[in-house]
Amino acid sequence: MTDAVPAYAPVELAFAGPAVPIPASRTPFTLDVGLGDRRLRVPGFWDGGDRYVARFLPETAGEWSWSTASEAPELDGRSGTVVVSGAAGHGPVRVVERFHFAHADGTPHRPVGATVYNWLHQSDELFTATADAIAQARFTKLRFMVFPQAGDYVEHHPELLPFERGPSGWDVDRPNVAFFRRLDAAVALLGDRGIQADVLILNAYDGGRFGLDGLTEEQDAVYLRYLVARLSAFPHVWWSLCNEFDILDRPRSRWDRLGTLLAETDPHDHLRSIHNWIELFDHNRPWITHASIQNGHVTTELGRAGLYRDVYDKPIVLDEIKYEGDIPERWGHLSAEELVHQFWVATVSGCYASHGESFALPGGSLHIVEGGALLGRSPQRLAFLRHVLDDLVVPGIDPIDKWDDPEFVGGVARRQYLRYFGRSAPPSWRFRLPQATNVGERLQSGDAFTVDIIDTWNMTVTAVERPFVLDDVRRNEAFAPEAIALPAGEAIALRITRTR
Amino acid sequence: MTDAVPAYAPVELAFAGPAVPIPASRTPFTLDVGLGDRRLRVPGFWDGGDRYVARFLPETAGEWSWSTASEAPELDGRSGTVVVSGAAGHGPVRVVERFHFAHADGTPHRPVGATVYNWLHQSDELFTATADAIAQARFTKLRFMVFPQAGDYVEHHPELLPFERGPSGWDVDRPNVAFFRRLDAAVALLGDRGIQADVLILNAYDGGRFGLDGLTEEQDAVYLRYLVARLSAFPHVWWSLCNEFDILDRPRSRWDRLGTLLAETDPHDHLRSIHNWIELFDHNRPWITHASIQNGHVTTELGRAGLYRDVYDKPIVLDEIKYEGDIPERWGHLSAEELVHQFWVATVSGCYASHGESFALPGGSLHIVEGGALLGRSPQRLAFLRHVLDDLVVPGIDPIDKWDDPEFVGGVARRQYLRYFGRSAPPSWRFRLPQATNVGERLQSGDAFTVDIIDTWNMTVTAVERPFVLDDVRRNEAFAPEAIALPAGEAIALRITRTR
Repeated sequence: MTDAVPAYAPVELAFAGPAVPIPASRTPFTLDVGLGDRRLRVPGFWDGGDRYVARFLPETAGEWSWSTASEAPELDGRSGTVVVSGAAGHGPVRVVERFHFAHADGTPHRPVGATVYNWLHQSDELFTATADAIAQARFTKLRFMVFPQAGDYVEHHPELLPFERGPSGWDVDRPNVAFFRRLDAAVALLGDRGIQADVLILNAYDGGRFGLDGLTEEQDAVYLRYLVARLSAFPHVWWSLCNEFDILDRPRSRWDRLGTLLAETDPHDHLRSIHNWIELFDHNRPWITHASIQNGHVTTELGRAGLYRDVYDKPIVLDEIKYEGDIPERWGHLSAEELVHQFWVATVSGCYASHGESFALPGGSLHIVEGGALLGRSPQRLAFLRHVLDDLVVPGIDPIDKWDDPEFVGGVARRQYLRYFGRSAPPSWRFRLPQATNVGERLQSGDAFTVDIIDTWNMTVTAVERPFVLDDVRRNEAFAPEAIALPAGEAIALRITRTR
Repeated sequence: MTDAVPAYAPVELAFAGPAVPIPASRTPFTLDVGLGDRRLRVPGFWDGGDRYVARFLPETAGEWSWSTASEAPELDGRSGTVVVSGAAGHGPVRVVERFHFAHADGTPHRPVGATVYNWLHQSDELFTATADAIAQARFTKLRFMVFPQAGDYVEHHPELLPFERGPSGWDVDRPNVAFFRRLDAAVALLGDRGIQADVLILNAYDGGRFGLDGLTEEQDAVYLRYLVARLSAFPHVWWSLCNEFDILDRPRSRWDRLGTLLAETDPHDHLRSIHNWIELFDHNRPWITHASIQNGHVTTELGRAGLYRDVYDKPIVLDEIKYEGDIPERWGHLSAEELVHQFWVATVSGCYASHGESFALPGGSLHIVEGGALLGRSPQRLAFLRHVLDDLVVPGIDPIDKWDDPEFVGGVARRQYLRYFGRSAPPSWRFRLPQATNVGERLQSGDAFTVDIIDTWNMTVTAVERPFVLDDVRRNEAFAPEAIALPAGEAIALRITRTR
């Protein structure tokens, strides 16, 4: 009997097995592990030499029992127990309240993500510096690719590639263990720094350089299963099937089958998405847990992003709203002011967004490609946004009167509201709240509120030193008599909280 | 051998069958009808007494052969031919070019629809007057309900109801033939006037008055099959499964099965949709041909409606963008100016919209409920819009640079464009066109265009008497040197057509 281990941390069981590796297309062994009614069927994987490993993630305290099954006698019929006590962190992020996220222990999670596509494939020094910079900027999520990228702005080619070569191209039956151990370490590094690992399983930027976009559907499936076996036990993994999937010339049915396989294979049911270039995927497909969308247009003004909530009925994560930077392409030269504005638009629309940085670097690359220090002026404002989100007393922001409120107030009816004025606030605002449409309590005369003025660029929160009491309650909106003076011309939001 | 009949007109075959009617839950007979490779399996229906009818719609000229199969000997094994020559009209409307509509013969169809929910259930006089008024206003489509409505603003209760009553409620096995003959006549009347019949199969406004929203799923299916058997041969039928489906407390899977049944049952494959109240249906479902959406918010400003095109990859018909009228509810008091503006926003966004009118009538009802003369100022402007659409040289309007064009120009790249300035145009506009993103030809220096100034409210089209030649072609946009003077403050659009 070993010492107790905490919940929400991976448990790894290693066994000696056949020295001639079992090909990855045949899961070498499975671990049946459970506690009470909860049973997991965990795929094991070959980890080099005669080493075979299974990892699982206990989410509750107690004595978990496990047993193995395998075609190989050495890996078959093993059993034991693991005592779980206490917890390390908050557990995997899952969908709550239709449009939002929380950790398994109930702690709200508001993704404010960063993007470094080729992070995994850089030198150890740059690799570590990037994770440190992202953690220091308080981003909660990092999007990065397992397979390397070729093409524009890519100045580094990796030493490690994911598979051995066979007589006719990649042999996915023989994963390169050194490559995947590096991936393990990368995911662990993010976990240590409190960052969710948004793993881009496939990418569309191979361009013939590595040939990893030329795998067959069966090869993709072998790789996917191996990847899941290695990483699923990490609590902070999110899966993204592909970045800009529609650049690749594949039928959607193939993506759909791969996504369905992912959902069936992952014993820990991590978040699953797929990300578009020009044509959206059908995020209503059941294997998709949240819509990961590229469309910078929907966050430039209020009234757009929330439309995606209606159509998908899932959390909306705008994983590419263009980048803060200075390159000629229009996807890469947003001002910091504009990018911060877009995050606030996403927020009050009840959606989430990701950051990326694309200043032309001396070596010819970009931060979104290789990482390094963050140079822009948006990250500290996004950390401030995250601070505001963490201080909310409601689980998430939803439109109050989704198709009819000219002010696009978000929040939870009669509890707490966010009102955002865009990049240039007027000199004053008459206290007004929309009535909820089909859900939520109706505002009543006498309801009292506090107001905090949030300067989204200068990063200040200033309480208005008097209460606001509704005295004019109408069918679709309600008013307090006073107006509020605003710092005209600044990017201002209001946080409005009911006290009575 | 009978005389030839035209294509695109219903062919009706009637037979004497069992005098004790075959219950509607058992299709009394089927007609196998075909010409060459094209074979249709057409359900017959009981039409009162010992009369049994099958109707089909030939779409090509030639000698069509038919034969019957039935449990009843009188209806079984009959056969014959029908010679089809020439054509009556343009045939059923179907989806073309992903986002648009055309008749079977290729003629473009641009729906500019009207709405009179209880049209079918009014006096003959009002019924006919309504169809005349809608035809005179040049609307191309009418949304109306088969089942009657109860509730607010409804002042008339129908004499005819669709089924006989049985010991435990409605007996859908015994349709009321008088009711359905009236429905036949209503659909025929619209056809005579050149109006598509957008048939709302179920509705959410029964409110316990008739009990027709309390049918079981099996009863709904019997009714649906009977309805399809009667109406499918009319070329101008569109099916809408329900208006504001989400008012009814039913699982979506039930709607999905009914819609799938509709697609399987209808031999002529008419357009199929379902219309929402607050929660959108998943219009990506394969049985849905176009997204019929209620959301007036998306047409108040440019940049919103087109987002639905991306998610559904089907034509978008905004079948309820609020109504021109004067009632207190905010869905019923748009100004004519605002409603016309919203149609233009829908149009340049590559979408379609429907009209409705809700002035408080002396009897307490509304035009959208009971019909009658049109009182508003929007219909003639919408007829003008239809005229503009009919004059287009392109099959449909699509966004040129869908997520990045600040001017939201629609059209077909390098052929013809529509630019709309909203309810208040500036005094002048510098000639500018966006480059297409992933499709279409790129603009080139020297490309020449004519410009027509369209006053959408005052209904004038004024040609600018000089050509515009591109001399400044950039990555994402192109310019001609001259500016165009506009009638400032008016609701202006431009039609821009390449001549060289």
